[in-house]
Amino acid sequence: MKITVLRLGHRPARDKRLSTHLLLAARAFGASDAVYSGTMDPGLEESVAKIVRDWGGDFRVGYEGNWRRVVRDWEGKVVHLTMYGLPAQGAVSEVRAADEPLLVVVGGPKVPREMYEMADWNVSVTTQPHSEVSALAVFLHLLLGGSELGLGFPEARLRIVPSAKGKDVVVSKD
Amino acid sequence: MKITVLRLGHRPARDKRLSTHLLLAARAFGASDAVYSGTMDPGLEESVAKIVRDWGGDFRVGYEGNWRRVVRDWEGKVVHLTMYGLPAQGAVSEVRAADEPLLVVVGGPKVPREMYEMADWNVSVTTQPHSEVSALAVFLHLLLGGSELGLGFPEARLRIVPSAKGKDVVVSKD
Repeated sequence: MKITVLRLGHRPARDKRLSTHLLLAARAFGASDAVYSGTMDPGLEESVAKIVRDWGGDFRVGYEGNWRRVVRDWEGKVVHLTMYGLPAQGAVSEVRAADEPLLVVVGGPKVPREMYEMADWNVSVTTQPHSEVSALAVFLHLLLGGSELGLGFPEARLRIVPSAKGKDVVVSKD
Repeated sequence: MKITVLRLGHRPARDKRLSTHLLLAARAFGASDAVYSGTMDPGLEESVAKIVRDWGGDFRVGYEGNWRRVVRDWEGKVVHLTMYGLPAQGAVSEVRAADEPLLVVVGGPKVPREMYEMADWNVSVTTQPHSEVSALAVFLHLLLGGSELGLGFPEARLRIVPSAKGKDVVVSKD
């Protein structure tokens, strides 16, 4: 299943690190690419591009000022992660069964009501406030059933060899 | 299993929002309490306390400048989350089998090598860089087997009723 993450309402000064963590979680947990709206932020895009250069794969991040267009023109299904939605643990089997390209929308503050209407599913990871980073990661984990935990990333310059006590990083020569 | 999260190296200016998200993820995914080291930050503690007042339960956050003492004096087992560790999906069954109070240590930048030695397990959630927030949430999810997704929080002032399209929040009268 091809998965794209849409991050709404990015604000560079306030959200830089959280959005970076969110996009890296999207990549690590199996999304193919991401789009963000709000304020354009070349620094955010570069932070993610640097990780991709070092750690492999071809995860890409693009900016789109008009998020409504991204959602409206999406050819596939749309999941909106919100603490008000239906439990993720129940929703993932329907999402999986649909087996279409999936747009996972992750809000900033004050997501317009329209978004709730445009989504095929409004989905919640717990009914408690926590973080869009944890919500996205756990949602993708539930959706992909753990297969994402062992994902390989081709053409990595750096690769970790899991270790009980140390830090074992293999560096490939260019 | 009683779970406490230890957040290392908090820096108020840089980490305020990330540490808040981390602590809220700890609470939402089943930890009983948390300790942070680095620089003391009453604003961080108050952000979490406010969520607890509104959303229930008795999750608590304390500051301890000397994190080594917290780890050394811990009566139970210690898991250190690090991208260099052994795969979480394998480690959780051992952690669960130990069935002792669990300290889950989440690093900031540059965790001293000592921490790797002091931990009973160094555990990684994927071998990719992402976020301490997603690592902690997915680790707790794997450990608790999904039971944490339906956790109830007593004495909540606010409670969400999951909804397909809307925002349904029940407000209890004081």
